[in-house]
Amino acid sequence: MPTILGQNQYGKAENRVVRITRDGTTHHIKDLNVSVALSGDMDEVHYSGSNANVLPTDTTKNTVYAFAKEHGIESAEQFGIHLARHFVTSQEPIHRARIRIEEYSWERIEAAGEGRHSFVREGRETRLAQITFDGERWEVVSGLKDLTVLNSTASEFWGYVKDRYTTLKEAYDRILATSVSGRWRFNWTDDAQEMPDWETSYEETRKHMLQAFAETYSLSLQQTMYQMGTRIIDHRGEIDEVRFSLPNSHHFLVDMEPFGLKNDNEVYFAADRPYGLIEATVLRDGCEARIPVDLTNL
Amino acid sequence: MPTILGQNQYGKAENRVVRITRDGTTHHIKDLNVSVALSGDMDEVHYSGSNANVLPTDTTKNTVYAFAKEHGIESAEQFGIHLARHFVTSQEPIHRARIRIEEYSWERIEAAGEGRHSFVREGRETRLAQITFDGERWEVVSGLKDLTVLNSTASEFWGYVKDRYTTLKEAYDRILATSVSGRWRFNWTDDAQEMPDWETSYEETRKHMLQAFAETYSLSLQQTMYQMGTRIIDHRGEIDEVRFSLPNSHHFLVDMEPFGLKNDNEVYFAADRPYGLIEATVLRDGCEARIPVDLTNL
Amino acid sequence: MPTILGQNQYGKAENRVVRITRDGTTHHIKDLNVSVALSGDMDEVHYSGSNANVLPTDTTKNTVYAFAKEHGIESAEQFGIHLARHFVTSQEPIHRARIRIEEYSWERIEAAGEGRHSFVREGRETRLAQITFDGERWEVVSGLKDLTVLNSTASEFWGYVKDRYTTLKEAYDRILATSVSGRWRFNWTDDAQEMPDWETSYEETRKHMLQAFAETYSLSLQQTMYQMGTRIIDHRGEIDEVRFSLPNSHHFLVDMEPFGLKNDNEVYFAADRPYGLIEATVLRDGCEARIPVDLTNL
Amino acid sequence: MPTILGQNQYGKAENRVVRITRDGTTHHIKDLNVSVALSGDMDEVHYSGSNANVLPTDTTKNTVYAFAKEHGIESAEQFGIHLARHFVTSQEPIHRARIRIEEYSWERIEAAGEGRHSFVREGRETRLAQITFDGERWEVVSGLKDLTVLNSTASEFWGYVKDRYTTLKEAYDRILATSVSGRWRFNWTDDAQEMPDWETSYEETRKHMLQAFAETYSLSLQQTMYQMGTRIIDHRGEIDEVRFSLPNSHHFLVDMEPFGLKNDNEVYFAADRPYGLIEATVLRDGCEARIPVDLTNL
Repeated sequence: MPTILGQNQYGKAENRVVRITRDGTTHHIKDLNVSVALSGDMDEVHYSGSNANVLPTDTTKNTVYAFAKEHGIESAEQFGIHLARHFVTSQEPIHRARIRIEEYSWERIEAAGEGRHSFVREGRETRLAQITFDGERWEVVSGLKDLTVLNSTASEFWGYVKDRYTTLKEAYDRILATSVSGRWRFNWTDDAQEMPDWETSYEETRKHMLQAFAETYSLSLQQTMYQMGTRIIDHRGEIDEVRFSLPNSHHFLVDMEPFGLKNDNEVYFAADRPYGLIEATVLRDGCEARIPVDLTNL
Repeated sequence: MPTILGQNQYGKAENRVVRITRDGTTHHIKDLNVSVALSGDMDEVHYSGSNANVLPTDTTKNTVYAFAKEHGIESAEQFGIHLARHFVTSQEPIHRARIRIEEYSWERIEAAGEGRHSFVREGRETRLAQITFDGERWEVVSGLKDLTVLNSTASEFWGYVKDRYTTLKEAYDRILATSVSGRWRFNWTDDAQEMPDWETSYEETRKHMLQAFAETYSLSLQQTMYQMGTRIIDHRGEIDEVRFSLPNSHHFLVDMEPFGLKNDNEVYFAADRPYGLIEATVLRDGCEARIPVDLTNL
Repeated sequence: MPTILGQNQYGKAENRVVRITRDGTTHHIKDLNVSVALSGDMDEVHYSGSNANVLPTDTTKNTVYAFAKEHGIESAEQFGIHLARHFVTSQEPIHRARIRIEEYSWERIEAAGEGRHSFVREGRETRLAQITFDGERWEVVSGLKDLTVLNSTASEFWGYVKDRYTTLKEAYDRILATSVSGRWRFNWTDDAQEMPDWETSYEETRKHMLQAFAETYSLSLQQTMYQMGTRIIDHRGEIDEVRFSLPNSHHFLVDMEPFGLKNDNEVYFAADRPYGLIEATVLRDGCEARIPVDLTNL
Repeated sequence: MPTILGQNQYGKAENRVVRITRDGTTHHIKDLNVSVALSGDMDEVHYSGSNANVLPTDTTKNTVYAFAKEHGIESAEQFGIHLARHFVTSQEPIHRARIRIEEYSWERIEAAGEGRHSFVREGRETRLAQITFDGERWEVVSGLKDLTVLNSTASEFWGYVKDRYTTLKEAYDRILATSVSGRWRFNWTDDAQEMPDWETSYEETRKHMLQAFAETYSLSLQQTMYQMGTRIIDHRGEIDEVRFSLPNSHHFLVDMEPFGLKNDNEVYFAADRPYGLIEATVLRDGCEARIPVDLTNL
């Protein structure tokens, strides 16, 4: 046989689970999108179609829902840890489990009446968590996508290389805007270590990211991005690596000279495509990079 | 000629305009998506291709940007009124202008330093405004889309018609969730009338809608929808008509009996398609319905 | 009570049904997305939440699947007629049914072996049908969306109005491209009339539309659009009304003078937003316009 | 400094370029979406914001358009090779260039008249190409996404592991459907080697994939996937590695017993989420895997 099987994985993707917790008439909500990917002793299902080692993807879906009941959802990360441990330890042919989770936030609606069971979905960013377990070592990567931010000043771009195809004019006061896609890896890898407080860690990491974006006087989006990563590494000891993928969401100053008007950094055209795309990893000194170069959407 | 030309309109759609206003080092931002549709004496461009009466769609785009400079953007509605008036009064062949606007909200990022020029986009709902002018009469319809809300209890569904194809079980405690698409029409139609405060009106209308959703003990989504409309008509004298299109975003209670577990209204599967779709108009008594049956996306 | 209920409708939207028909080892496939909207004696469900007149949306879903079995799917239009007739004639409180259908086309994969049961989905346009029945009169509107077409020459744009905000340069050889959204209304309204051959009608209408687009030397997109409508009315006696919504998908000639190159109508930038949007109704002389001004996505 | 910079890259993403070639009155069209990512000596722009080594993303955009004029677009792969070579060889600080291309296909509209300049866009799959160059070694990975295929029989699923959470019933005749996302890596890595015929290679690879999908009697989607990969490796000597990401697009047989009907593999519900997700690499024996585990959308 001239071909061989390489890396492979399977599972049920995008299980949408909503968990309500009732504290008297005050309800709480967790809203997740959970994807399961399992690997292990799976050659035969590829070669002959024998499913003897295959736990059905439908069962992985059922397990997500059952665990939301049995374990509750304390945090996306903790929920993923329960799931990954279960698949690897309960099925001999499964050697590795990767759980990916999107989390959607809800805010309480303040209203008259006794019950507190009404919510409006926050549409801001989507929170992300990826938990991988191989039976020994944990890898937890959290993150977010679609966090759209903008500085209306304090950004310049000049002093760049000019070649035959360069027509861009230097800018000494521009809008800097991006939609942050970020991932950060925790140095918690072992059940013997104390687990981070996942909820606090997320809130603090997000806050540092936003503040670094706002507080950096920017000569390039790369500089701002590096500051965002550095701020996280500096303040959050539980995190060793950060990777960002930042579109430069161009806001072009509209030329109003043809209309006899002066556009004094007031009116901008927000463009769709093309866009600059700036990507980098920021590491705690001495740590190894493990987050892949390409961030995936889920 | 066996064919005739019916209703027609043209213009530039989806002009993305961002307006920054500087109040010292404190900046303010307005972020709109503006679509222009013009009608009038336009037979010839359809019959022969003569553009003698056609103001180019490119010019309508330029006008959007120029007006953001010349008039500022006080509110989406006020900005649309400036534009619609301009097209109808400045071009003889144009008899009617319809301006549609999407507005995206931004929240300030609190950060160190003197400047206040950093923003994070709220992703919640998209605010909508449609302004139509025929040279004499104004019609302003405001609204929103993608406002996702959920009650985790206080909703039942029973007592319905059962036919040969009915298999649904009655529910005495269910999740009620929807993504509100709503439009409301103002009774301001004439320059001689006092203009509503568009910003306040939007905030208050949204608040009443959310509170009615939260405070209605629901026997059907229709009942909740009608209460949402009634609450608006009752409290906002400037509004005569409301129309809603509400998907019933099904959250199915997961059957855990096969796993030997009891799911006591705790774990739900959030489904995508199909979904119930519930639509209605609520009118102030004596008023005429003018919002079309089908709400469009823009 | 100061508020009254206006137009209202309800039903299950986006029922995805795939129907396989086996002709020996040769299979055939129909792939539809069916949305049901019912109206009638429904005041009480809005006022008090009483569901006594409400056939559940879940039942309308079940009916779609049951009818795919009982009646098969000859065409989207014929299938919609079965459904609409059923809802209006079997439930006394239901006075009007509107069925909307999206149809996705599949092409056979030619492969070795006896069976002919493999298909690849054509991604071109989505076919649309809307069937409305009030117990007496039928209205069938068919159509399509997302049919993307382009002429790389034979298009000009000049001789238009110029005002203070006009900067566009006249064009004597440009790309004309659009993504056709079209609807056409049949004059079949009564069971006593002979029904059109829906499948043939669709194929021929689509063909005339494409040919008119290709064969019209265009001085404006409006002119091309009108020719597309006229061609349909002229050739298809079963159709009385056509409405189009055509984005002008701008392809801007890239200015290469700064690089010392001459771009002789060779290289274009395909823009996203903003875009011109050109809409019109074309009618058979003497017929009334009934297709709404705003075409909805479904 | 406790943080260090890891892998980083930048460039302009999603440059939409349409290239028209005129062969008398017969026109040809190439329609691409080109993304540029450059790496090299870029530490300083991250640390201090100095752009002294930065060729602006705007220049990379201009280069894409200029090259479409100067070199034409023979194939996506050849075009990417021109671009990657240019960036690495013309700018000293740039050590590596990765060009990603989406290609959209157009089919000619047959119409009356002399000119052949009218096209309708095929919506089937999107063709993909990724070209990477580090100054010495080439890596070309081609592929596609959104190729939706379906077998209406010749698929079974049984004999799988059953645990406490397993409820799935075994299936002996089911629909097998997926939307293929595939990438394949060429063994052309060096300018000294003869370059593959990229256009022929794509067409043949696509054909083998479709035929393997259609001709495999499937006991699992993994088996079908492996056959698709094997067929490519067996027939296309220029390809050493294939990776697939295949959603199992579930088509559930609708239970019609409650309606007193028998659904003999005729009527299916096409589900959206969740879906099985099956991923694997198939390698020519002796070759190394280089395509990342996670296929990205662009």
